[in-house]
Amino acid sequence: MNEANYYSRDPVPETPEPKQGQDHWVETRVVGQPLPRVDAYQRLSGAAVYPSDVNLPDMLYGAVLRCPHAHARVQSLDATAAEKMPGVRAVLTAASPGADIPWQPESEGPASVLFDSVCRFEGEAVAAVAAATPYQAHDALRAIEVVYDVQPAVSNPLTALEPGAPKVHPEGNSVGEPSTYERGDVNTGFDAADVVVEETFEVPFLLHTPLETHGCVARWEGDKLTIWESTQGVYNVQSQTARALDLPLSHVRVIGHYVGGGFGSKLAIGKYTLIAALLAKKSARPVKVFLSREETFLCVGNRPGGTMRLKAGARRDGTLTALDFEALGSGGAYSPYGTGLFDWQIRDLYHCPNVRTKGQSAYIHAGEESPMRAPGHPQGSWALEQILDGLAEKLGMDPLELRLKNLTTVSQARGDIPYTSTGFKECLEDGAKAFGWAAARARPPAKGAIVRGVGLGGCTWVAGAGGPPSTAIVKYFADGSVNLNLGASDIGTGTKTVMAMGVAEELGVPLERIQIEHADTGTTEFATASGGSKTVPTESPAVRAAALDCKEQLLAMAADDLETAIGELKLEEGEVFSTHDPSKRLAVGEISQFQRRRTVIGVGYRGPNPEGKAVCPFAAQFCEVEVNKLTGEVRVLRFLGAHDSGRVMSRLTYDNQVYGGIVMGIGFGLTERRVLDEKQTGKMVNKNWHDYKIPTALDVPADMVSLPIEIQDLECNTTGAKGLGEPVTIPTAAAIANAVYHATGVRVTEAPINPTRLLELLAAQDERRA
Amino acid sequence: MNEANYYSRDPVPETPEPKQGQDHWVETRVVGQPLPRVDAYQRLSGAAVYPSDVNLPDMLYGAVLRCPHAHARVQSLDATAAEKMPGVRAVLTAASPGADIPWQPESEGPASVLFDSVCRFEGEAVAAVAAATPYQAHDALRAIEVVYDVQPAVSNPLTALEPGAPKVHPEGNSVGEPSTYERGDVNTGFDAADVVVEETFEVPFLLHTPLETHGCVARWEGDKLTIWESTQGVYNVQSQTARALDLPLSHVRVIGHYVGGGFGSKLAIGKYTLIAALLAKKSARPVKVFLSREETFLCVGNRPGGTMRLKAGARRDGTLTALDFEALGSGGAYSPYGTGLFDWQIRDLYHCPNVRTKGQSAYIHAGEESPMRAPGHPQGSWALEQILDGLAEKLGMDPLELRLKNLTTVSQARGDIPYTSTGFKECLEDGAKAFGWAAARARPPAKGAIVRGVGLGGCTWVAGAGGPPSTAIVKYFADGSVNLNLGASDIGTGTKTVMAMGVAEELGVPLERIQIEHADTGTTEFATASGGSKTVPTESPAVRAAALDCKEQLLAMAADDLETAIGELKLEEGEVFSTHDPSKRLAVGEISQFQRRRTVIGVGYRGPNPEGKAVCPFAAQFCEVEVNKLTGEVRVLRFLGAHDSGRVMSRLTYDNQVYGGIVMGIGFGLTERRVLDEKQTGKMVNKNWHDYKIPTALDVPADMVSLPIEIQDLECNTTGAKGLGEPVTIPTAAAIANAVYHATGVRVTEAPINPTRLLELLAAQDERRA
Repeated sequence: MNEANYYSRDPVPETPEPKQGQDHWVETRVVGQPLPRVDAYQRLSGAAVYPSDVNLPDMLYGAVLRCPHAHARVQSLDATAAEKMPGVRAVLTAASPGADIPWQPESEGPASVLFDSVCRFEGEAVAAVAAATPYQAHDALRAIEVVYDVQPAVSNPLTALEPGAPKVHPEGNSVGEPSTYERGDVNTGFDAADVVVEETFEVPFLLHTPLETHGCVARWEGDKLTIWESTQGVYNVQSQTARALDLPLSHVRVIGHYVGGGFGSKLAIGKYTLIAALLAKKSARPVKVFLSREETFLCVGNRPGGTMRLKAGARRDGTLTALDFEALGSGGAYSPYGTGLFDWQIRDLYHCPNVRTKGQSAYIHAGEESPMRAPGHPQGSWALEQILDGLAEKLGMDPLELRLKNLTTVSQARGDIPYTSTGFKECLEDGAKAFGWAAARARPPAKGAIVRGVGLGGCTWVAGAGGPPSTAIVKYFADGSVNLNLGASDIGTGTKTVMAMGVAEELGVPLERIQIEHADTGTTEFATASGGSKTVPTESPAVRAAALDCKEQLLAMAADDLETAIGELKLEEGEVFSTHDPSKRLAVGEISQFQRRRTVIGVGYRGPNPEGKAVCPFAAQFCEVEVNKLTGEVRVLRFLGAHDSGRVMSRLTYDNQVYGGIVMGIGFGLTERRVLDEKQTGKMVNKNWHDYKIPTALDVPADMVSLPIEIQDLECNTTGAKGLGEPVTIPTAAAIANAVYHATGVRVTEAPINPTRLLELLAAQDERRA
Repeated sequence: MNEANYYSRDPVPETPEPKQGQDHWVETRVVGQPLPRVDAYQRLSGAAVYPSDVNLPDMLYGAVLRCPHAHARVQSLDATAAEKMPGVRAVLTAASPGADIPWQPESEGPASVLFDSVCRFEGEAVAAVAAATPYQAHDALRAIEVVYDVQPAVSNPLTALEPGAPKVHPEGNSVGEPSTYERGDVNTGFDAADVVVEETFEVPFLLHTPLETHGCVARWEGDKLTIWESTQGVYNVQSQTARALDLPLSHVRVIGHYVGGGFGSKLAIGKYTLIAALLAKKSARPVKVFLSREETFLCVGNRPGGTMRLKAGARRDGTLTALDFEALGSGGAYSPYGTGLFDWQIRDLYHCPNVRTKGQSAYIHAGEESPMRAPGHPQGSWALEQILDGLAEKLGMDPLELRLKNLTTVSQARGDIPYTSTGFKECLEDGAKAFGWAAARARPPAKGAIVRGVGLGGCTWVAGAGGPPSTAIVKYFADGSVNLNLGASDIGTGTKTVMAMGVAEELGVPLERIQIEHADTGTTEFATASGGSKTVPTESPAVRAAALDCKEQLLAMAADDLETAIGELKLEEGEVFSTHDPSKRLAVGEISQFQRRRTVIGVGYRGPNPEGKAVCPFAAQFCEVEVNKLTGEVRVLRFLGAHDSGRVMSRLTYDNQVYGGIVMGIGFGLTERRVLDEKQTGKMVNKNWHDYKIPTALDVPADMVSLPIEIQDLECNTTGAKGLGEPVTIPTAAAIANAVYHATGVRVTEAPINPTRLLELLAAQDERRA
């Protein structure tokens, strides 16, 4: 740990009072502390009302009929019987008035509608029902008679591009031209290389399966609609719903006070949102539509998988000379993104003069992708960080040393603009030191069937800067309590806690006296959705500016009473006092103008990002694994995440992000994979928590360390915080793969590293050695 | 109608852009229009969720056991059986931990506690129960065994002050020294008078019985309490509950989006508020406590009645020389106010150099008073306006002429400070003209049993200025929709509509694009309770200032884009344009800084009231009645209210206030009276809507006219609005009494003028004449 980099606890003498939106915290008393969440009680006691807990009087339950085939045409649909079922209050089909709504609201993919007559993946919505109980709704679904014309399906991007493959869309399965990037000349680079390695990697499609499933409750009052949705962005839901239903924004209120996890899949509305709204309209009753677990596996999105080829060259001293990358993947039946951002780590993490990347995506008969924690990045990292270890081996270098050799302080992918700060070097060095990297690498290999190894991975994240727009309001009340009002969602990451700590810092108010109103389009300001590791860097400067605005007003009022200059006044623990004359002090409640007003309101806006610079977080993760060569099992023994995300705003939520990201990365590295029946039906065979294996407590090491690398970034924004939520999961799987290689000498290029595959590779290794 | 006084529709050329909080609207496009309420659909369709409509999952129903005696001591209480009843989840008695809470929270009357062992009126709370259904709760109440030691009761303020009367409090029944006021010398005044009249008047105790009964729903989350209460002031409920339960303000959130009428009785919390909170705490479930209609008659407050003696002297030309007033009344068992403000009309409405008033109150064994629409004023007006008619008759003057003779432009009761404006003269003159006063008075008396007469009454109102604190926030969103955020309650008077119209005026946004968040301590700013005719004059200047702040920011941003001075820019219908150069125009959405921010927030505070001046509304009401001399029935044929309340902010809500106030005054004048069994039990005999007669549609004339007297008041505040809600009901009953006198020659000094009493007086008149 490099103490010199830790500035936030160092007392700084004579800090001038920061002007709103300009300067930075230097010394902090609250920010950075490991304080419990402000809503911990609510979350733990069950008192928190998540959208799925919202129950309104006379509320109906909606359910969605889904196509059971990977590819089929709806020939006919008869809902007559369903409409007469007990408790049924509304049935919605493609023929219902108002149901002819274009879909998708966000992606630029091929056109579709809410209930499309062509179903392009298992789980496409075909009809919906609202009934008095969920059971009645599901019974009614079964009574809807649908005749499907089942068509052949294609489930794999490789086969999808073969001639004669079943077409997902009339235009074919190719998503336009491949996306390409090039700098320098890779041929020259490879010519200059002393060593070259090349490998093909495969990454699986991973499924979104947050604890709270997707859904909402919709209620109409006249022509005004209120939606309680489990969402990462109430303003996204508001604008997308308003657009789909042709309503003014002011007629759509969206509330999402709690979210049981989103990870990117709740950034946009789902068809369930519009279905709930339409069913509520038709039945003139509030309607709740929350998906079943199986439905979330089928239709709320996934992380694209695919095949990647990466070739890397380096000089004898380790200097990278060329990177050549090619990817083929799919965003499912509708999304054109697919392999987008697969190449970002390759383009931007390590200094390399010659880089070429190419990404191709294909439509397949499978559920659509949706952003999943660091879109594209873990995939690319899986390739890059393994190829670097391959290079290091060929060069006879330590993997850590090779990475340190290729550091950069500019973003080459952005035209060589400098980073406002980069702590990647410290992440690698301090992380390695704290992990005990050198000693672990130096350990002689084990002899028996149980072997151990260590691995590391580095990363950057394309976003994480945050940015405007962000607006916050801070209200200071007569009894010294405070209301913090902001539009952003707290998707479980602690946004409310972090922002309240920022207010507590500036106003000297204890956390328990800060009431937070958030994530409600009716009561808060516009905020972008909470995603992309941008919530803290986006919102915290606005919150700080609002608190400072509030403080400045209070100090100005106090200055009148105390007959002193504002500049010499300080606000601490409900008291304003002069730093020049200790006799001049006043409880906030005694400020005469404040007594009259009883409320002081601070408004804060977030300023623009610095021009001509890149704001990015960096990380290095280190792990140790144990491999049972007889069973192929891999146990992760310990993990350390060294993260440069700028200022640590709240130590507990920070650490939680690191741990959570590592756990998610373990799933990618070791256990998770969507399995489609590619040969026959194209249907998903593991659409439940038994067969789709997310890490459990037993798969996660007890020994997890979060090591913040707190680089002082004076330029990124006025709080110095960079994004954290996504880098924490980018290099995890690759670090595991490197550790497995270190333990066994077997390089697993296909994720996840499951025991069967590992045993096959170990057997092949034995054969080669024999 | 004096057209010269009507300024608001007159186009004024070249109005300079008003600076925030300084100047006045002159020309308005939205303000003043007769626009329907913004929440009309919700209210009419039943979609509006009043606090009594709030139903939470797992909610219990609370019910309160009330003493059935006017005066009793609780000797013992056994709730053992009740606690075991089906569905019962919590029983609360005086012995329950935490129930020992001092009461009253607001009045300065004698001390009591939540469940007092001495019950001083029928309906005092003795215990409470929460159960799964209301029926189970009420069944459980009946199972609570209470042994009462019933004591003699005193129900009348006159007898309460007699020696040997049963004592309400150990200190006796007198509420301290009488309150007195004196200016000039009444003896000198009466000496100078040519005519003197003197009369004794009686006014009844009137009961609060708003459409939505009193109550709340309370829910705890940990140590945080949320209350949905039918209240006129969520911040009152917040602070009083926090104080009673020893919680910080930030731990008590109060929401009161709709209120089914308050009229002063919902300004403070009730015992039901604390009972709901304590039951919810004890049962760990949300608890709803809403009173039955009978309970509201017993315990939510009343308008004090009593006896008044008024003597008035005038010179031959009508000039008042002296007024001498004395009142005896009661605020019930606890309130010391009683006859407070009975004398205000006498002190301040007409110019009179010599005035003496005296008010005495006594405690009686009856429910406590609470403010009821213009506390004290209708009572005093009942005396004053009748005595003036008596004077006029003696002087041979028209009652209108007498009143016009004694106008004043200063508030004598406030030390002769001038009014910022007074339209009393115009109210009288324009009202009389519009009503056809002169012709109606000149009509020869009818011969038969059915006779007609006209009467008038004038008034002022002690409050109605409004004043700080008031804070509002206006948020302008990217799609041109607006959020208006203010803490005040809309108690059915149209506050939301009036304030939204103020925003629409300044920002040029249609009403339907304005979303309003209000009356929620968790999401809004501190606001004083909605009462005392002060909501519009208190809140509208803050709302206007917020809208102007918002506009100024938008114009400043647009000025940057248009490269022009702010001063020449105007905002209209979503467009900013230069008044100098028509080619310079920009849709708000195109302003580049606004595109980045997506939200612009205006904050507005209400400034102080003018120093050394009085801000008061004035009114004159005119009515025509028909009296059936055989049955004693009085029918009100028509009513006209000419009101000077400054600027008319919203014509429909304005008129509604006038009509509603007149209806309430008809109840006072003709039908309403609390009847206690004074001779024996002291209990109320008409605690229901059958026996306590509030006016119905059949009692109200179809011919009601609201005539706004829109005096331009540049000093009162920045919108020019003065209070309206209370003057509308002050002179109504007296005007009816004067009309009855005009029709019959019988002066009814005891309200209400019921047929029995009127027949007695008509018979006595016949005897005198015979």
